[in-house]
Amino acid sequence: MSRVPYHPSTFQALTFHDALPAFSERSDTPRAYLERCVQAIDAREPTVQAFAHLNVESARQAADESTARWAAGTPLSQIDGMPIGIKDLLETRDMPTQMGCQAYQGHFPKRDNAAVRALREAGAVVFGKTVTAELGNTEPGPTTNPFDASRTPGGSSSGSAAAVAAGMLPAAIGTQVGGSIIRPASFCGNVALKPTKGAINRGERQTTSMSTHGVHAGCIEDMWSVAIEIAMRAGGDPGMPPLSGPRSAPAASKPQRLIVIESQGWSRIDDVTRGAFVQLLDTLGGMGISVVSRSDDRAVEALEQAIAEAESLCSDITAWENHWSYRYLIEDDPERVSERMKRTVARAEAMTNVDYQARLAEREVAQLCYRQTRAVGDAVVMLSSPGVAPPWSGDAPGEPLAPRPTGDAVFNYPSSLLFAPAVTVPIMAIDGLPLGVQVMGQPHQDAWVTSIARWLADNVTPVVVD
Amino acid sequence: MSRVPYHPSTFQALTFHDALPAFSERSDTPRAYLERCVQAIDAREPTVQAFAHLNVESARQAADESTARWAAGTPLSQIDGMPIGIKDLLETRDMPTQMGCQAYQGHFPKRDNAAVRALREAGAVVFGKTVTAELGNTEPGPTTNPFDASRTPGGSSSGSAAAVAAGMLPAAIGTQVGGSIIRPASFCGNVALKPTKGAINRGERQTTSMSTHGVHAGCIEDMWSVAIEIAMRAGGDPGMPPLSGPRSAPAASKPQRLIVIESQGWSRIDDVTRGAFVQLLDTLGGMGISVVSRSDDRAVEALEQAIAEAESLCSDITAWENHWSYRYLIEDDPERVSERMKRTVARAEAMTNVDYQARLAEREVAQLCYRQTRAVGDAVVMLSSPGVAPPWSGDAPGEPLAPRPTGDAVFNYPSSLLFAPAVTVPIMAIDGLPLGVQVMGQPHQDAWVTSIARWLADNVTPVVVD
Repeated sequence: MSRVPYHPSTFQALTFHDALPAFSERSDTPRAYLERCVQAIDAREPTVQAFAHLNVESARQAADESTARWAAGTPLSQIDGMPIGIKDLLETRDMPTQMGCQAYQGHFPKRDNAAVRALREAGAVVFGKTVTAELGNTEPGPTTNPFDASRTPGGSSSGSAAAVAAGMLPAAIGTQVGGSIIRPASFCGNVALKPTKGAINRGERQTTSMSTHGVHAGCIEDMWSVAIEIAMRAGGDPGMPPLSGPRSAPAASKPQRLIVIESQGWSRIDDVTRGAFVQLLDTLGGMGISVVSRSDDRAVEALEQAIAEAESLCSDITAWENHWSYRYLIEDDPERVSERMKRTVARAEAMTNVDYQARLAEREVAQLCYRQTRAVGDAVVMLSSPGVAPPWSGDAPGEPLAPRPTGDAVFNYPSSLLFAPAVTVPIMAIDGLPLGVQVMGQPHQDAWVTSIARWLADNVTPVVVD
Repeated sequence: MSRVPYHPSTFQALTFHDALPAFSERSDTPRAYLERCVQAIDAREPTVQAFAHLNVESARQAADESTARWAAGTPLSQIDGMPIGIKDLLETRDMPTQMGCQAYQGHFPKRDNAAVRALREAGAVVFGKTVTAELGNTEPGPTTNPFDASRTPGGSSSGSAAAVAAGMLPAAIGTQVGGSIIRPASFCGNVALKPTKGAINRGERQTTSMSTHGVHAGCIEDMWSVAIEIAMRAGGDPGMPPLSGPRSAPAASKPQRLIVIESQGWSRIDDVTRGAFVQLLDTLGGMGISVVSRSDDRAVEALEQAIAEAESLCSDITAWENHWSYRYLIEDDPERVSERMKRTVARAEAMTNVDYQARLAEREVAQLCYRQTRAVGDAVVMLSSPGVAPPWSGDAPGEPLAPRPTGDAVFNYPSSLLFAPAVTVPIMAIDGLPLGVQVMGQPHQDAWVTSIARWLADNVTPVVVD
C-alpha cells in the first residue's frame, strides 16, 4: 500500500459526528469506534508511521468511560468518545513529549497542555502522539504520505495530517507557526483549521508570537467541533479572546466576492498547479462569485507588496523567538540536534534585537494592509500549498541538505504573519494526490471562513488533473 | 541585627554605577566588589535568608572575567561585573529553579531564562537565586525584613527586595503579576521598576497575561541600567515592543501635574500612613506641582470606579491562567503544595471560561479609562503599599490561615491590570521602616516615569514619622 491514489469525489475520510446517533441508539459505541481505529492503525501504520507514541490501553479505558456515558444518555460533548491524536510538541500527562528531537528522547513532563486537558474534559479519547518535524521546524520525522509513501506528508504536523488521511483517526491536533498545519493538510487531503492567533490556548507553548494550535480532520463538522470544544474549556491564550461561534459547525455560506492572493508563492508553482487553480477560479466565476485580484484593487495590490517577502519575515521572527531555547539544546547535546536546526539557530544569531524589532514593524504594516482589504471581498482564497506533496527519500549523503524536505510553506506564511484564520479544503487533485485550497479571513472570523470553506467543499465540483 | 531602623536621609544602599570609574582606574575591581557582597551576605544572610541558592564559585569566575575586561578597557556594558540576584521563578542554567515550592525541590532545567542570558551577555555576575513566595503567590518563604526581622519583606519577590535592602547585592530581578515587585520594594526601601507589560522578555514564563520581569535596586541609575541592558539583548515578550529609552538612566524631570489615585487601597490604610502620604502631597504642592484627584476630574473618577475591584479582578484572572499547571502539581504531589495554593486553584476551578472572559473585558474597560486620563497629568502618584511591612511570624497552629502573610498588594493591582509601568522610590518612613511612593505612567512610558521618580527621589524632602 505504498500508493493509494486520491480522488476528491470518491475519497472517504473517517468522520465522527455521524457516529453519534448510533452511539445514542447503542447500535455503535465509542469503544467499537476506537477498535476500528486500532485496526486501521494496524493496517496502515507500518508504512505511514504517523505516531511517535500510542497509548492504546489508556485510550481503551477512556473509550469505555465514554461508552458508559453515551449509554446513560450523558455524553460530555459532541466529541465525547472521539479518538484524537496530539502533535508531539504538546505535553500529555500519560505519554512522553519528545518533539521529534533526539535531545528530548524520553522527555516526559507528566502534565497536559491546556488544550489536551480540555479535550479530556470534553470526553475525547486522547490516543497517541503524532510525529512532528524536529521541534516544529523542518527536519523530517519518519512519516510518509498516505497516498504515496515516496512523498512527504508535509510538516511540521506530519503525523497529525497523515493519521487523518490514512483513516486512522477522525481528527488530530496540529500547530502552525509558518505553514505547519495548512501545508500538510493540503498534501494529505485533510480539512484543517489554523485559527486566529491566540484563539486557542497554547498552554505551555507561548514563546513564539505567531504560533497557533489547530485541527486536522476528515470533515468540517469534526474540525469545528474539536476547536470549539477546546476553546469553550481552555479559552484563548492568556488575555486573548478565544475562538467563538456556534457549538456545531457553522452552516455553509456562499460567498459573493473572494479576494485571490498570489503571494510569494505564485512564481514558484508549476504550470499544472497554476492551471488547476485557475480552473477552480473559473468554476467559482461560473457560479456567480466574483474574484478580485491585485490588478483589480489597490488595497489588494498593497497587501501583495507588503507580504512579498513573507517567507524571510516569518522565518526570521520565529528563528529569533526560538533561539534562546534552541541554543541550549545545541550546547548541551550537539549530537542529538539536527544540522538543519543548527542552521536555524545560526540564522537567529546573525540577527540583533534591533533587526527583530524591524521585522516586527514590517509584520505590523502587513497586518494594517490586510485590514484595508476588509471591504474588498468576503474572504481570501489561495492555494494551500504550491503543488501536491513532493517526493522525499532523505538527504543524499555528501550532498547539501535539501532546502525544504517537508515541502514549501510559501502559501502559509501570509495567514501566520497576518494572525488570520484559515481553513483548507481538499477540492483539487493532481496525478492522484490531493491539493488543498484555503479560505482566509480577518482575525476572529474563524466561524465565517469555516462557513465559506464548507460551502466550497459541498458545492464546488473538484478540479482533478490526471 | 534583628532590628536596623531605616531613615530615608541616612540609609546608604549598595550601588554599582558609581564603582565604574574605580574599575576603569583599577583602584577597584569587580572581583573585589563581589567579595564585599559575599562579606555582607556572611553578615546578614543568617537572619535575612534572602537566598534560595548561591553559586559563589561561578560568581567569582564571572567576576574575574569581568575584572579582566575592565583591566583591558573592554567592558561589555555598564553592568559588566554587577553582582545580581535572580528571583527563583526564572530558570538559571547553573542553579536549580525551585520556585519556593516543595514540589519543585531539586528542579534543575539547566538553561537560562532569556533575561538571565541577556544579563550574562552584558557581563553581569549572576550570583544567586533569591527566595520567592511559593510559585510567585502568597505562601511565604523564610526571608525576613532586613529592617525588622519580625516583619515580612513582602512578596513574592521577597529575597530580591531583601537582598538589596541588606546591602548584599546592588540589584536583583523580581517579577510582578499582582503586586510582587513594588510591594516588597516598598517594605524594603528599594527603588524598583515594574515595566510596561511585555517590555522585558519573560523567556519561558509567558503563561500569564499580566506578569512582568522587573528590577530591584539601591538607586535609579542601577535599576534603569539593568532593565535597559536586558531589553537591548533579549527584547520584549515575543512580538511585543521592548523597553526603550536612553542607555543610562533618564535625567530627573520635575512634573507639573500629578494624578493621585486612591484605588481600592485608600480605605484600607491607617491614619498614620494616610497622614504621611497627605503630607507628601502637600510637600509636592508646596513645590509648585498640582495634584489632581478623583474629585477634580471626571476621567480620574471614571478610572477610580473602573479599578474599584482591582484586587478580585487581578486575582481571578491570574488564578485562572495558572490553574492548569497548578492543578497537576496538586494532583501529583499534594503533600508538597501549600494549603494557600490549593485555595487559589479552588478559586480558579470555581470559575468558567466565560467568567474569565468577562473579567478580561472588565480589565479592558479599565485600560480604556486609564488612557482617557493621559491629558490630565504627567503621571500618577500613589502609595506603593498600604503601610509599612506588617509583622509576620507564621500561621498560628489551629487558627485560620492568615489572609496576606506577605502583606497587601492592594496598591499594586492597578499597574498590573493597566499594563502600566511603575517605579517606586523610598521617600517615606514610619517607625523606622521604609514606605515607598510609586509613579505610574501610560504603557511604554517607562523612561518617563523613571525620570519623574528620579526627580522625586532627588528633590523631595522625605516624610518621616517616628
